[in-house]
Amino acid sequence: MSNSFGNVFKITTFGESHGPAIGVVIDGCPPGLRVNPEDIAKELARRRPGQSRITTQRRERDAVEILSGMHEGKTLGSPIALLIRNEDTKSGDYNNLKNTFRPSHADFTYEAKYGRRDPRGGGRASARETVSRVAAGVFAKKLLAQEKIEILAYVRQIYHVIADILPETVTSSQVESNIVRCPDTSAAKKMIETIEDMSLLGDSVGGIIECIIRNVPAGLGSPVFDKLEARLAQAMLSIPATRGFEVGEGFNAALFTGNEHNDAFVATKGKIRTKTNHSGGIQGGISNGMPILFRVAFKPTATILKEQDTVDSKGKKMKLQVVGRHDPCVLPRAVPIVEAMAALVLADEWLRQKTLL
Amino acid sequence: MSNSFGNVFKITTFGESHGPAIGVVIDGCPPGLRVNPEDIAKELARRRPGQSRITTQRRERDAVEILSGMHEGKTLGSPIALLIRNEDTKSGDYNNLKNTFRPSHADFTYEAKYGRRDPRGGGRASARETVSRVAAGVFAKKLLAQEKIEILAYVRQIYHVIADILPETVTSSQVESNIVRCPDTSAAKKMIETIEDMSLLGDSVGGIIECIIRNVPAGLGSPVFDKLEARLAQAMLSIPATRGFEVGEGFNAALFTGNEHNDAFVATKGKIRTKTNHSGGIQGGISNGMPILFRVAFKPTATILKEQDTVDSKGKKMKLQVVGRHDPCVLPRAVPIVEAMAALVLADEWLRQKTLL
Amino acid sequence: MSNSFGNVFKITTFGESHGPAIGVVIDGCPPGLRVNPEDIAKELARRRPGQSRITTQRRERDAVEILSGMHEGKTLGSPIALLIRNEDTKSGDYNNLKNTFRPSHADFTYEAKYGRRDPRGGGRASARETVSRVAAGVFAKKLLAQEKIEILAYVRQIYHVIADILPETVTSSQVESNIVRCPDTSAAKKMIETIEDMSLLGDSVGGIIECIIRNVPAGLGSPVFDKLEARLAQAMLSIPATRGFEVGEGFNAALFTGNEHNDAFVATKGKIRTKTNHSGGIQGGISNGMPILFRVAFKPTATILKEQDTVDSKGKKMKLQVVGRHDPCVLPRAVPIVEAMAALVLADEWLRQKTLL
Amino acid sequence: MSNSFGNVFKITTFGESHGPAIGVVIDGCPPGLRVNPEDIAKELARRRPGQSRITTQRRERDAVEILSGMHEGKTLGSPIALLIRNEDTKSGDYNNLKNTFRPSHADFTYEAKYGRRDPRGGGRASARETVSRVAAGVFAKKLLAQEKIEILAYVRQIYHVIADILPETVTSSQVESNIVRCPDTSAAKKMIETIEDMSLLGDSVGGIIECIIRNVPAGLGSPVFDKLEARLAQAMLSIPATRGFEVGEGFNAALFTGNEHNDAFVATKGKIRTKTNHSGGIQGGISNGMPILFRVAFKPTATILKEQDTVDSKGKKMKLQVVGRHDPCVLPRAVPIVEAMAALVLADEWLRQKTLL
Repeated sequence: MSNSFGNVFKITTFGESHGPAIGVVIDGCPPGLRVNPEDIAKELARRRPGQSRITTQRRERDAVEILSGMHEGKTLGSPIALLIRNEDTKSGDYNNLKNTFRPSHADFTYEAKYGRRDPRGGGRASARETVSRVAAGVFAKKLLAQEKIEILAYVRQIYHVIADILPETVTSSQVESNIVRCPDTSAAKKMIETIEDMSLLGDSVGGIIECIIRNVPAGLGSPVFDKLEARLAQAMLSIPATRGFEVGEGFNAALFTGNEHNDAFVATKGKIRTKTNHSGGIQGGISNGMPILFRVAFKPTATILKEQDTVDSKGKKMKLQVVGRHDPCVLPRAVPIVEAMAALVLADEWLRQKTLL
Repeated sequence: MSNSFGNVFKITTFGESHGPAIGVVIDGCPPGLRVNPEDIAKELARRRPGQSRITTQRRERDAVEILSGMHEGKTLGSPIALLIRNEDTKSGDYNNLKNTFRPSHADFTYEAKYGRRDPRGGGRASARETVSRVAAGVFAKKLLAQEKIEILAYVRQIYHVIADILPETVTSSQVESNIVRCPDTSAAKKMIETIEDMSLLGDSVGGIIECIIRNVPAGLGSPVFDKLEARLAQAMLSIPATRGFEVGEGFNAALFTGNEHNDAFVATKGKIRTKTNHSGGIQGGISNGMPILFRVAFKPTATILKEQDTVDSKGKKMKLQVVGRHDPCVLPRAVPIVEAMAALVLADEWLRQKTLL
Repeated sequence: MSNSFGNVFKITTFGESHGPAIGVVIDGCPPGLRVNPEDIAKELARRRPGQSRITTQRRERDAVEILSGMHEGKTLGSPIALLIRNEDTKSGDYNNLKNTFRPSHADFTYEAKYGRRDPRGGGRASARETVSRVAAGVFAKKLLAQEKIEILAYVRQIYHVIADILPETVTSSQVESNIVRCPDTSAAKKMIETIEDMSLLGDSVGGIIECIIRNVPAGLGSPVFDKLEARLAQAMLSIPATRGFEVGEGFNAALFTGNEHNDAFVATKGKIRTKTNHSGGIQGGISNGMPILFRVAFKPTATILKEQDTVDSKGKKMKLQVVGRHDPCVLPRAVPIVEAMAALVLADEWLRQKTLL
Repeated sequence: MSNSFGNVFKITTFGESHGPAIGVVIDGCPPGLRVNPEDIAKELARRRPGQSRITTQRRERDAVEILSGMHEGKTLGSPIALLIRNEDTKSGDYNNLKNTFRPSHADFTYEAKYGRRDPRGGGRASARETVSRVAAGVFAKKLLAQEKIEILAYVRQIYHVIADILPETVTSSQVESNIVRCPDTSAAKKMIETIEDMSLLGDSVGGIIECIIRNVPAGLGSPVFDKLEARLAQAMLSIPATRGFEVGEGFNAALFTGNEHNDAFVATKGKIRTKTNHSGGIQGGISNGMPILFRVAFKPTATILKEQDTVDSKGKKMKLQVVGRHDPCVLPRAVPIVEAMAALVLADEWLRQKTLL
């Protein structure tokens, strides 16, 4: 069941990186939602390898087939199964990895857990699995769009380059205006240079993605264990290569006093809101109607072209020289994944809230 | 179901702060585990209000009654229900809060979600709910202790005071040697002063708790959505007043290159381990046998004695002057809560792993 | 998690028969529902031992304490915990059963499953656990009553005595008019005699309970695995001593042809209904707006006063002579349990349906 | 989530009868289990339409593609996705049903629930969905076979023809020796005649399937709500066209006294068993080591060729004349479905039991 996520709006993903296919089953999506194959294609294009010179050159069409759950262009209320065939898999690249544990990859831990693994392309641990999430996220986004809820993620930091961004005013077109998906154009330029430099060195970098969710009605989120920030945290930390999550002021909150951090309530035309938004739109695990703001930390890509020390499955020392096509930095392609996971959490809590009314 | 946590080892908590009682039902705890009431009492004492001069002076005995699931001192395999009566509740202190939304509390959001709330002491949103978690955590810790798995949390930072700590060597007695639960004695002294100063000003502070888990066997954690760090993130962000979670290098990982961050595998006497532990003991969502290391950010306590601006339930502007007894800093008492939630995650994954063998 | 039932409206029960207490936590009950302690007391009185000369003479007040989830007489939306202390437990009666397996009881199977058990009064396997279900069912019934949904169970058969009943017209007062809870007065008389005769012989009898649910809107029930009849079947077979479940024509359906069994649709004043109701109100797992009708088979009580052959925990042959107070027939007291379980299923599906709209 | 079944060994099915495909995702199957495509093909052949003259003549190859979760012929521990394309779908046959509610089908109730439906071939409500269950059941059966647990179902009754069968000694080859899957050869002959006669009349019949499970170790099944019989009941009643479930003596238990019905314990060579098996191998919801025996009632097929009264979606009276290819009796093809669902329950409980040890 660890391959499922959600309570009412629930997804189950399947598939290994170099097996026949990957895919997802969405259960609990309400009937009558119109979703076009183009909507899915467009979102997958944002995640696709080979989309720019700073991503892996692996070429995948990621063509999605809708197997079930739709009729005459609309959801039926029954499970929606989406299938994506694996193509352009150069499994031969992984032959030498069958008995090798790549550093900071999941080879060793999968072997420890299951006693076996599919060594080709990381198998189930490959970030390719996130295609399924992005595809499913399209349905969640559509559902939220009916309520005017809008989710927007972007790159905030790459290595030492930190962008200067005012979350409240960022637009989707600003984010999509450059290949690194950072709305600060000048920082974006430096980020791209940094990634290209690291790529030339056979090394990799990480960074921070920020996400703002607008027009969330007050009242979403389920105490106690399913607080909105708790579910978002699980959602984000389930994305490969993530290392941290923070909401509102996050780790920086430690440097505020209570008097500085508390968000005073004010009322504008009868509508209650807060003067500041240090809380990041969530109080007591429930949305308060202000924009939800959170950040996700990504480590540098584990796959690097530099030679590394490691051991084989017998514990014998060896040198690892990876070949193949890899991302020197996952963040530009991770932006739509962060959005998809956030959409899945919000759609689920939106439907859950209906059961209380 | 949002009041439940876990898959195999599962808890459900209940109770409002000023209602008759709070408690927890543990379902899925294996039979034959010996737990004494003293074990529970000892752990609750670490969380109890009034334990020192830097915590709230509310006095609660927090006496736990074991209602079910045990016979002759051992667990039966049936649900274990634990009951803690609410005592010394000065509900009168909350009379003026019935129609007031305290800043950065859950009053407003609970009202938005449910259309009603128990205004006394924060009701269900009160941190008092965590008594149940600490009590349940005792059973999880006992289960893990059989496997030599040890969980140790401590205060890493309070406001601007950052401790100098080597996680690998911290001991429980170092942590418990002072009332702020920081193993760096000199930093601990400054932290206590900081808290006392803020308390005198009617203000509050937050900080960071760090947690190390030792002797975790490789192979625990369930891909894809229940990655070990994802579940720990949810667990931690479900604790009141938390704002962030990070594992291993966390947000700092952004400042490493892949070559610097990757943990090279080495073998010592046939046992495979990593030379460094930037990953914090988890790779691909599964434990790798190294110590698990994570940090949790806490905001400053929302309840402060300084006068604050707010509105009432009609949106009318008003001044809020809180009376009552409150913590100027929650971290010393949050240390056992962080440990309990970590234990609940680990125990659950430990039992889950048995289904694969 | 096997001590929990439901998806949105979810209960978790706990407690052994002769431990300190039993109880239940209800999670997911919507806020604003008015429930009085008297409502619960009244329903528990229908299940209580000692209520008539044909039930066990064990005397229990079954006083329910509401521990949480309510404020000013209404539900808050937070978990509702209900506590019932065990009283008048003559645990001494069970001393000789510590190492004995009572025939057709759960002594042997609990020992096989858990390696240990609480031998007093059947422990967790005791039908006393159903007090929790009946108490929780009161909340579910209240929720359904708002929608005019009415659940009515009654005794259809005891041993060889079969009542003549027209389900469509049975009333609650007819059912409660006699101590065996059979609306056919003349059959009721014979049933009572049968039970009394068996009781004198130290033997026991079983029978069949029928249940009708009226005013169910079309559209409740969740395909595929949570078909309404599938969930009712699980709910009913989870009641101790049950042996079978059937809906509509049930096992008798085998004796119809399709043409005879099919329920033709007709429309009365624009409202679509079926001419006959062989389907028992459910088609394709979803309610069709007709009354839901099902039956539950109960075996004769396993505890009898006659001497029986058995073995002890070492497998040594022995004679068992049970002492203590027991029901010669569980059905009169099982009527409210059947209703409670049906209410829990319906309330859950009612809330689930809201997530589709 | 109603399209999922199981706790540890969990399946999720998807697909409409006349959509592109149906399929299933199995999550929680332990790694290292060898399953061949032929194993799946063989089992699906038992369920396949067109297999004999008494089943529908719809021809489907039901070729299964394994999309994920296997490597080198063995399960990986990751989700196993199985895909079956829909072929030979004569959707044109259903054109006239778009606005018509077929009696005792799910057309009306799906429309009531979802406000829309796929009218082609019953859509999601079609028994075609059970292909997914049978395919998934192969993995469950393999897992159980490692423990020597054997599941065997067969037709016990068709219309008025009741077979004379000794469950303890029935063999698989006896069941498969005739096209109606009844091990009593003489009754089988009459059953086939009955079905053929009804088919000629454009009518249909139902009946009863019995299932025996051998070599089940004592201790499987999870009290309270997941009693083994409760889960089997849900599993069976989730199969289309089922109307009842009974275990052991079932509804007939009402005609026993306690003294007659109780199964006395005896010990043979130290192994404890019961002299009789009125309980059907389950006591207190947990297996007692004796064969598990249960029966499932099926109504006559709702689709008949005789003209029927019904209404359209506006409530207008009309005559329904179904064309197309249908089963005059579903039982012969339902035998492997009953086995598959039983296997899914047992495999799940087998894995669950490991978490207690």
